[in-house]
Amino acid sequence: MLQLYFSPMACSLASRIALMEAGLDARYHLVHLRTKQVLDDDSDFQSISPKGAVPVLVLENGERLTESAAVLQYIADAKPEAGLAPRLGDPDRYRVQEWLSFIGAEIHKAFLFPFFWYQDDGSLAKPRARIPQTLSVPAAHLEDREFLVGNRFTVADAHLTWALLLLRPAGVDIAQWPSLSAYLQRMQARPAVRDAIATEVALRKTMATSPA
Amino acid sequence: MLQLYFSPMACSLASRIALMEAGLDARYHLVHLRTKQVLDDDSDFQSISPKGAVPVLVLENGERLTESAAVLQYIADAKPEAGLAPRLGDPDRYRVQEWLSFIGAEIHKAFLFPFFWYQDDGSLAKPRARIPQTLSVPAAHLEDREFLVGNRFTVADAHLTWALLLLRPAGVDIAQWPSLSAYLQRMQARPAVRDAIATEVALRKTMATSPA
Repeated sequence: MLQLYFSPMACSLASRIALMEAGLDARYHLVHLRTKQVLDDDSDFQSISPKGAVPVLVLENGERLTESAAVLQYIADAKPEAGLAPRLGDPDRYRVQEWLSFIGAEIHKAFLFPFFWYQDDGSLAKPRARIPQTLSVPAAHLEDREFLVGNRFTVADAHLTWALLLLRPAGVDIAQWPSLSAYLQRMQARPAVRDAIATEVALRKTMATSPA
Repeated sequence: MLQLYFSPMACSLASRIALMEAGLDARYHLVHLRTKQVLDDDSDFQSISPKGAVPVLVLENGERLTESAAVLQYIADAKPEAGLAPRLGDPDRYRVQEWLSFIGAEIHKAFLFPFFWYQDDGSLAKPRARIPQTLSVPAAHLEDREFLVGNRFTVADAHLTWALLLLRPAGVDIAQWPSLSAYLQRMQARPAVRDAIATEVALRKTMATSPA
Protein backbone atom coordinates (compact mmCIF):
# COMPACT_ATOMS: atom_id res chain seq x y z
CA MET A 1 0.00 0.00 0.00
CA LEU A 2 1.23 3.51 -0.80
CA GLN A 3 2.07 5.75 2.14
CA LEU A 4 1.89 9.55 2.11
CA TYR A 5 3.69 11.86 4.52
CA PHE A 6 1.64 15.02 4.64
CA SER A 7 0.89 18.12 6.66
CA PRO A 8 -2.71 19.33 6.81
CA MET A 9 -3.43 21.89 4.06
CA ALA A 10 0.20 21.90 2.90
CA CYS A 11 0.82 21.15 -0.78
CA SER A 12 0.60 17.46 0.01
CA LEU A 13 -3.17 18.00 -0.04
CA ALA A 14 -2.93 17.75 -3.82
CA SER A 15 -1.51 14.24 -3.45
CA ARG A 16 -4.30 13.25 -1.05
CA ILE A 17 -6.86 14.57 -3.54
CA ALA A 18 -5.21 12.52 -6.30
CA LEU A 19 -5.17 9.36 -4.18
CA MET A 20 -8.82 9.80 -3.26
CA GLU A 21 -9.86 10.67 -6.84
CA ALA A 22 -8.06 7.50 -7.97
CA GLY A 23 -9.73 5.46 -5.24
CA LEU A 24 -6.31 4.27 -4.04
CA ASP A 25 -5.99 3.23 -0.43
CA ALA A 26 -3.00 4.71 1.31
CA ARG A 27 -1.58 5.07 4.78
CA TYR A 28 -1.22 8.71 5.81
CA HIS A 29 1.49 10.00 8.17
CA LEU A 30 1.02 13.46 9.64
CA VAL A 31 4.15 15.63 9.78
CA HIS A 32 4.65 18.78 11.84
CA LEU A 33 6.57 20.85 9.32
CA ARG A 34 8.00 23.34 11.81
CA THR A 35 9.25 20.77 14.30
CA LYS A 36 10.02 18.19 11.58
CA GLN A 37 8.35 15.46 13.66
CA VAL A 38 6.17 12.62 12.46
CA LEU A 39 3.07 12.49 14.64
CA ASP A 40 2.83 8.66 14.60
CA ASP A 41 5.82 8.19 16.87
CA ASP A 42 7.49 11.62 17.24
CA SER A 43 10.25 10.36 14.95
CA ASP A 44 12.46 12.73 12.97
CA PHE A 45 10.88 13.49 9.61
CA GLN A 46 14.26 14.43 8.14
CA SER A 47 15.33 10.82 8.52
CA ILE A 48 12.46 10.03 6.12
CA SER A 49 13.40 12.85 3.74
CA PRO A 50 16.41 15.15 4.23
CA LYS A 51 14.47 17.85 2.39
CA GLY A 52 12.09 18.06 5.35
CA ALA A 53 9.22 18.85 2.99
CA VAL A 54 5.96 17.18 2.11
CA PRO A 55 4.73 15.32 0.13
CA VAL A 56 6.79 12.17 0.52
CA LEU A 57 5.22 9.14 -1.13
CA VAL A 58 6.50 5.75 0.00
CA LEU A 59 6.20 3.43 -2.98
CA GLU A 60 5.27 -0.25 -2.87
CA ASN A 61 8.99 -1.15 -3.07
CA GLY A 62 9.82 1.08 -0.10
CA GLU A 63 11.49 3.83 -2.12
CA ARG A 64 10.52 7.39 -1.28
CA LEU A 65 9.47 9.88 -3.90
CA THR A 66 9.28 13.63 -3.26
CA GLU A 67 8.11 16.75 -5.15
CA SER A 68 4.44 17.16 -6.00
CA ALA A 69 5.06 17.10 -9.76
CA ALA A 70 6.61 13.62 -9.54
CA VAL A 71 4.36 12.25 -6.78
CA LEU A 72 1.20 13.34 -8.58
CA GLN A 73 2.27 11.73 -11.86
CA TYR A 74 3.22 8.55 -10.01
CA ILE A 75 -0.22 8.39 -8.39
CA ALA A 76 -1.93 9.03 -11.73
CA ASP A 77 0.06 6.25 -13.40
CA ALA A 78 -0.60 3.87 -10.50
CA LYS A 79 -4.24 3.79 -11.57
CA PRO A 80 -4.35 4.75 -15.24
CA GLU A 81 -8.03 3.83 -15.58
CA ALA A 82 -8.86 6.77 -13.30
CA GLY A 83 -7.61 9.09 -16.04
CA LEU A 84 -5.81 11.47 -13.68
CA ALA A 85 -3.13 12.10 -16.31
CA PRO A 86 -3.08 11.55 -20.05
CA ARG A 87 -1.43 8.23 -20.87
CA LEU A 88 2.31 8.26 -21.44
CA GLY A 89 2.88 9.22 -25.06
CA ASP A 90 -0.23 11.42 -25.25
CA PRO A 91 0.86 14.99 -26.14
CA ASP A 92 -1.43 16.30 -23.38
CA ARG A 93 0.92 14.69 -20.87
CA TYR A 94 3.32 17.60 -21.46
CA ARG A 95 0.48 20.03 -20.72
CA VAL A 96 -0.04 18.37 -17.34
CA GLN A 97 3.71 18.68 -16.70
CA GLU A 98 3.59 22.32 -17.80
CA TRP A 99 0.82 23.15 -15.32
CA LEU A 100 2.42 21.18 -12.48
CA SER A 101 5.63 23.16 -12.99
CA PHE A 102 3.83 26.50 -13.21
CA ILE A 103 1.72 25.91 -10.11
CA GLY A 104 4.65 24.52 -8.10
CA ALA A 105 7.10 27.26 -9.09
CA GLU A 106 5.10 30.40 -9.84
CA ILE A 107 2.21 30.14 -7.37
CA HIS A 108 3.62 27.93 -4.61
CA LYS A 109 7.36 28.60 -4.47
CA ALA A 110 7.31 32.22 -5.66
CA PHE A 111 4.39 33.37 -3.50
CA LEU A 112 2.72 30.94 -1.09
CA PHE A 113 5.97 29.63 0.35
CA PRO A 114 7.42 33.06 1.20
CA PHE A 115 4.03 34.12 2.55
CA PHE A 116 3.73 31.25 5.01
CA TRP A 117 7.42 30.98 5.93
CA TYR A 118 8.90 34.48 5.55
CA GLN A 119 5.92 36.60 6.56
CA ASP A 120 7.72 38.37 9.39
CA ASP A 121 9.87 40.56 7.17
CA GLY A 122 9.51 42.79 4.12
CA SER A 123 10.39 40.12 1.62
CA LEU A 124 6.86 39.56 0.40
CA ALA A 125 6.22 42.88 -1.36
CA LYS A 126 7.59 41.86 -4.75
CA PRO A 127 6.10 38.35 -4.81
CA ARG A 128 2.74 39.90 -3.86
CA ALA A 129 2.99 42.52 -6.57
CA ARG A 130 3.66 39.77 -9.08
CA ILE A 131 0.91 37.32 -8.13
CA PRO A 132 -1.95 38.98 -10.11
CA GLN A 133 0.01 38.59 -13.35
CA THR A 134 0.75 34.98 -12.43
CA LEU A 135 -2.90 34.20 -11.70
CA SER A 136 -4.03 35.83 -14.92
CA VAL A 137 -2.48 32.87 -16.79
CA PRO A 138 -4.76 30.12 -15.40
CA ALA A 139 -7.66 32.61 -15.22
CA ALA A 140 -7.46 33.25 -18.98
CA HIS A 141 -6.97 29.56 -19.70
CA LEU A 142 -10.06 28.60 -17.68
CA GLU A 143 -12.36 31.19 -19.27
CA ASP A 144 -13.77 28.55 -21.58
CA ARG A 145 -12.55 25.30 -20.05
CA GLU A 146 -13.85 23.10 -17.28
CA PHE A 147 -10.43 21.58 -16.45
CA LEU A 148 -6.80 22.61 -16.98
CA VAL A 149 -6.01 19.84 -19.50
CA GLY A 150 -8.41 18.06 -21.82
CA ASN A 151 -11.97 17.45 -20.74
CA ARG A 152 -11.47 15.62 -17.47
CA PHE A 153 -10.02 16.09 -14.00
CA THR A 154 -6.25 15.51 -13.86
CA VAL A 155 -3.57 15.82 -11.19
CA ALA A 156 -2.94 19.35 -12.51
CA ASP A 157 -6.42 20.22 -11.22
CA ALA A 158 -5.60 18.65 -7.85
CA HIS A 159 -2.52 20.87 -7.65
CA LEU A 160 -4.29 24.08 -8.69
CA THR A 161 -7.22 23.40 -6.36
CA TRP A 162 -4.81 23.30 -3.43
CA ALA A 163 -3.01 26.46 -4.54
CA LEU A 164 -6.28 28.41 -4.97
CA LEU A 165 -7.47 27.29 -1.52
CA LEU A 166 -4.30 28.68 0.08
CA LEU A 167 -4.49 32.05 -1.67
CA ARG A 168 -7.30 33.26 0.59
CA PRO A 169 -5.37 32.91 3.88
CA ALA A 170 -2.45 34.48 2.00
CA GLY A 171 -4.59 37.58 1.41
CA VAL A 172 -5.40 37.12 -2.28
CA ASP A 173 -9.10 37.21 -3.10
CA ILE A 174 -9.61 35.12 -6.20
CA ALA A 175 -13.04 36.69 -6.72
CA GLN A 176 -11.08 39.13 -8.89
CA TRP A 177 -10.86 36.30 -11.42
CA PRO A 178 -14.39 34.92 -11.87
CA SER A 179 -13.10 32.01 -13.94
CA LEU A 180 -10.86 30.95 -11.04
CA SER A 181 -13.61 31.26 -8.41
CA ALA A 182 -16.01 29.28 -10.56
CA TYR A 183 -13.34 26.66 -11.22
CA LEU A 184 -12.57 26.29 -7.51
CA GLN A 185 -16.29 25.88 -6.77
CA ARG A 186 -16.55 23.17 -9.43
CA MET A 187 -13.53 21.34 -8.06
CA GLN A 188 -14.80 21.57 -4.47
CA ALA A 189 -18.11 20.07 -5.56
CA ARG A 190 -16.34 16.82 -6.46
CA PRO A 191 -16.88 14.28 -3.65
CA ALA A 192 -13.25 13.16 -3.45
CA VAL A 193 -11.95 16.73 -3.40
CA ARG A 194 -14.51 17.75 -0.79
CA ASP A 195 -13.68 14.78 1.42
CA ALA A 196 -9.91 15.31 1.11
CA ILE A 197 -10.23 18.96 2.09
CA ALA A 198 -12.66 18.22 4.97
CA THR A 199 -10.23 15.65 6.37
CA GLU A 200 -7.31 18.07 6.33
CA VAL A 201 -9.28 21.04 7.64
CA ALA A 202 -10.35 18.90 10.61
CA LEU A 203 -6.77 17.76 11.25
CA ARG A 204 -5.51 21.32 10.91
CA LYS A 205 -7.90 22.47 13.65
CA THR A 206 -6.58 19.76 15.96
CA MET A 207 -3.03 20.92 15.35
CA ALA A 208 -3.81 24.56 16.03
CA THR A 209 -4.72 23.69 19.59
CA SER A 210 -1.83 21.27 20.07
CA PRO A 211 1.50 22.37 21.56
CA ALA A 212 3.30 21.91 18.23
CA MET B 1 11.95 21.86 -36.95
CA LEU B 2 11.62 22.74 -33.27
CA GLN B 3 12.04 26.39 -32.31
CA LEU B 4 13.26 27.65 -28.96
CA TYR B 5 12.67 31.11 -27.54
CA PHE B 6 15.56 31.74 -25.16
CA SER B 7 17.51 34.45 -23.38
CA PRO B 8 21.27 33.98 -23.02
CA MET B 9 22.18 32.23 -19.75
CA ALA B 10 18.54 32.21 -18.58
CA CYS B 11 17.05 28.85 -17.62
CA SER B 12 16.34 28.20 -21.29
CA LEU B 13 20.05 27.26 -21.49
CA ALA B 14 19.04 23.87 -20.11
CA SER B 15 16.77 23.37 -23.12
CA ARG B 16 19.56 24.37 -25.52
CA ILE B 17 21.88 21.88 -23.80
CA ALA B 18 19.23 19.17 -24.17
CA LEU B 19 18.68 19.96 -27.87
CA MET B 20 22.41 19.88 -28.54
CA GLU B 21 22.97 16.71 -26.49
CA ALA B 22 20.15 15.10 -28.50
CA GLY B 23 21.65 16.34 -31.77
CA LEU B 24 18.32 17.97 -32.65
CA ASP B 25 18.41 20.92 -35.01
CA ALA B 26 16.33 23.84 -33.84
CA ARG B 27 15.74 27.45 -34.69
CA TYR B 28 16.63 29.77 -31.80
CA HIS B 29 14.93 33.09 -31.13
CA LEU B 30 16.62 35.50 -28.73
CA VAL B 31 14.32 37.27 -26.27
CA HIS B 32 15.13 40.36 -24.21
CA LEU B 33 13.44 39.39 -20.96
CA ARG B 34 13.27 42.88 -19.48
CA THR B 35 11.84 44.56 -22.58
CA LYS B 36 9.87 41.43 -23.62
CA GLN B 37 11.02 41.86 -27.22
CA VAL B 38 12.05 39.17 -29.67
CA LEU B 39 15.34 40.22 -31.28
CA ASP B 40 14.47 38.74 -34.73
CA ASP B 41 11.95 41.45 -35.50
CA ASP B 42 11.42 43.45 -32.28
CA SER B 43 8.04 41.76 -31.94
CA ASP B 44 6.26 41.44 -28.60
CA PHE B 45 7.34 38.27 -26.83
CA GLN B 46 4.17 38.25 -24.76
CA SER B 47 2.20 37.63 -27.94
CA ILE B 48 4.23 34.39 -28.19
CA SER B 49 3.69 33.54 -24.52
CA PRO B 50 1.61 35.62 -22.11
CA LYS B 51 3.86 34.38 -19.31
CA GLY B 52 6.72 36.42 -20.78
CA ALA B 53 9.19 33.80 -19.63
CA VAL B 54 11.62 31.49 -21.40
CA PRO B 55 11.88 28.73 -22.47
CA VAL B 56 9.11 28.54 -25.04
CA LEU B 57 9.42 25.56 -27.35
CA VAL B 58 7.45 25.74 -30.60
CA LEU B 59 6.52 22.18 -31.51
CA GLU B 60 6.35 20.72 -35.00
CA ASN B 61 2.58 21.28 -35.01
CA GLY B 62 2.99 24.96 -34.09
CA GLU B 63 1.82 24.61 -30.50
CA ARG B 64 3.91 26.33 -27.86
CA LEU B 65 5.12 24.56 -24.75
CA THR B 66 6.49 26.41 -21.71
CA GLU B 67 8.12 25.48 -18.37
CA SER B 68 11.54 23.81 -18.34
CA ALA B 69 10.23 20.62 -16.73
CA ALA B 70 7.82 20.04 -19.63
CA VAL B 71 10.06 21.38 -22.41
CA LEU B 72 13.00 19.25 -21.30
CA GLN B 73 10.92 16.07 -21.17
CA TYR B 74 9.47 16.86 -24.59
CA ILE B 75 12.97 17.27 -26.06
CA ALA B 76 14.11 14.03 -24.42
CA ASP B 77 11.13 12.13 -25.84
CA ALA B 78 11.62 13.68 -29.30
CA LYS B 79 14.83 11.67 -29.61
CA PRO B 80 14.51 8.70 -27.27
CA GLU B 81 17.64 7.03 -28.64
CA ALA B 82 19.69 9.86 -27.12
CA GLY B 83 18.66 8.60 -23.67
CA LEU B 84 18.08 12.06 -22.20
CA ALA B 85 15.26 10.68 -20.05
CA PRO B 86 14.34 7.16 -18.98
CA ARG B 87 11.69 5.75 -21.29
CA LEU B 88 8.09 6.31 -20.32
CA GLY B 89 7.14 3.58 -17.87
CA ASP B 90 10.66 3.29 -16.42
CA PRO B 91 10.48 4.07 -12.68
CA ASP B 92 13.53 6.33 -13.05
CA ARG B 93 11.36 8.67 -15.08
CA TYR B 94 9.80 9.86 -11.79
CA ARG B 95 13.30 10.57 -10.48
CA VAL B 96 13.96 12.84 -13.44
CA GLN B 97 10.63 14.59 -12.72
CA GLU B 98 11.58 14.86 -9.04
CA TRP B 99 14.89 16.60 -9.85
CA LEU B 100 13.34 18.87 -12.48
CA SER B 101 10.80 20.03 -9.90
CA PHE B 102 13.41 20.50 -7.16
CA ILE B 103 15.80 22.47 -9.38
CA GLY B 104 13.02 24.56 -10.88
CA ALA B 105 11.32 25.37 -7.58
CA GLU B 106 13.95 25.25 -4.83
CA ILE B 107 17.05 26.53 -6.63
CA HIS B 108 15.61 28.61 -9.46
CA LYS B 109 12.33 30.03 -8.22
CA ALA B 110 13.18 30.23 -4.51
CA PHE B 111 16.67 31.74 -4.92
CA LEU B 112 17.99 32.56 -8.41
CA PHE B 113 14.82 34.30 -9.56
CA PRO B 114 14.59 36.68 -6.57
CA PHE B 115 18.34 37.30 -6.82
CA PHE B 116 18.24 38.39 -10.45
CA TRP B 117 14.87 40.17 -10.36
CA TYR B 118 14.40 41.48 -6.80
CA GLN B 119 17.99 42.30 -5.89
CA ASP B 120 17.36 45.95 -5.13
CA ASP B 121 15.53 45.37 -1.86
CA GLY B 122 15.93 43.33 1.29
CA SER B 123 13.87 40.41 0.13
CA LEU B 124 16.81 38.11 -0.54
CA ALA B 125 18.03 37.52 3.02
CA LYS B 126 15.81 34.53 3.76
CA PRO B 127 16.20 32.82 0.38
CA ARG B 128 19.97 33.27 0.71
CA ALA B 129 20.00 31.83 4.24
CA ARG B 130 18.11 28.83 2.94
CA ILE B 131 20.18 28.01 -0.15
CA PRO B 132 22.96 26.01 1.61
CA GLN B 133 20.40 23.53 2.95
CA THR B 134 18.86 23.31 -0.51
CA LEU B 135 22.20 22.64 -2.19
CA SER B 136 23.13 20.02 0.38
CA VAL B 137 20.48 17.76 -1.20
CA PRO B 138 22.09 17.38 -4.66
CA ALA B 139 25.56 17.59 -3.06
CA ALA B 140 24.86 14.52 -0.90
CA HIS B 141 23.21 12.71 -3.79
CA LEU B 142 26.21 13.29 -6.07
CA GLU B 143 28.82 12.14 -3.54
CA ASP B 144 28.94 8.74 -5.20
CA ARG B 145 27.14 9.30 -8.49
CA GLU B 146 28.26 10.64 -11.83
CA PHE B 147 24.79 11.81 -12.90
CA LEU B 148 21.57 12.75 -11.09
CA VAL B 149 19.58 9.75 -12.35
CA GLY B 150 20.89 6.38 -13.44
CA ASN B 151 24.27 6.11 -15.11
CA ARG B 152 23.88 8.54 -17.98
CA PHE B 153 23.30 12.19 -18.73
CA THR B 154 19.62 13.19 -18.59
CA VAL B 155 17.69 16.43 -18.92
CA ALA B 156 17.85 16.68 -15.10
CA ASP B 157 21.62 17.15 -15.51
CA ALA B 158 21.04 19.82 -18.15
CA HIS B 159 18.82 21.66 -15.68
CA LEU B 160 21.19 21.36 -12.71
CA THR B 161 24.20 22.37 -14.83
CA TRP B 162 22.45 25.63 -15.67
CA ALA B 163 21.45 26.26 -12.05
CA LEU B 164 24.99 25.65 -10.76
CA LEU B 165 26.45 27.99 -13.39
CA LEU B 166 24.15 30.79 -12.23
CA LEU B 167 24.95 30.37 -8.54
CA ARG B 168 28.38 32.03 -8.90
CA PRO B 169 27.08 35.39 -10.21
CA ALA B 170 24.43 35.10 -7.49
CA GLY B 171 27.21 35.04 -4.90
CA VAL B 172 27.14 31.37 -3.93
CA ASP B 173 30.50 29.62 -4.20
CA ILE B 174 29.81 25.96 -4.89
CA ALA B 175 33.40 25.07 -3.93
CA GLN B 176 31.83 24.55 -0.48
CA TRP B 177 30.35 21.36 -1.93
CA PRO B 178 33.18 19.47 -3.65
CA SER B 179 30.73 16.96 -5.14
CA LEU B 180 28.89 19.81 -6.85
CA SER B 181 32.06 21.48 -8.19
CA ALA B 182 33.35 18.18 -9.51
CA TYR B 183 29.97 17.44 -11.08
CA LEU B 184 29.84 20.84 -12.80
CA GLN B 185 33.34 20.31 -14.17
CA ARG B 186 32.33 16.89 -15.53
CA MET B 187 29.23 18.33 -17.16
CA GLN B 188 31.14 21.26 -18.66
CA ALA B 189 33.63 18.81 -20.18
CA ARG B 190 30.87 17.38 -22.37
CA PRO B 191 31.18 18.83 -25.90
CA ALA B 192 27.49 19.65 -26.29
CA VAL B 193 27.30 21.31 -22.88
CA ARG B 194 30.49 23.28 -23.53
CA ASP B 195 29.26 24.44 -26.94
CA ALA B 196 25.83 25.41 -25.62
CA ILE B 197 27.36 27.49 -22.83
CA ALA B 198 29.94 29.11 -25.14
CA THR B 199 27.20 30.15 -27.55
CA GLU B 200 25.14 31.80 -24.83
CA VAL B 201 28.10 33.44 -23.08
CA ALA B 202 29.04 35.04 -26.42
CA LEU B 203 25.47 36.24 -27.00
CA ARG B 204 25.24 37.54 -23.47
CA LYS B 205 28.31 39.72 -24.01
CA THR B 206 26.72 41.21 -27.12
CA MET B 207 23.60 42.06 -25.17
CA ALA B 208 25.49 43.72 -22.33
CA THR B 209 26.75 46.36 -24.76
CA SER B 210 23.43 46.75 -26.55
CA PRO B 211 20.87 49.37 -25.52
CA ALA B 212 18.44 46.74 -24.23
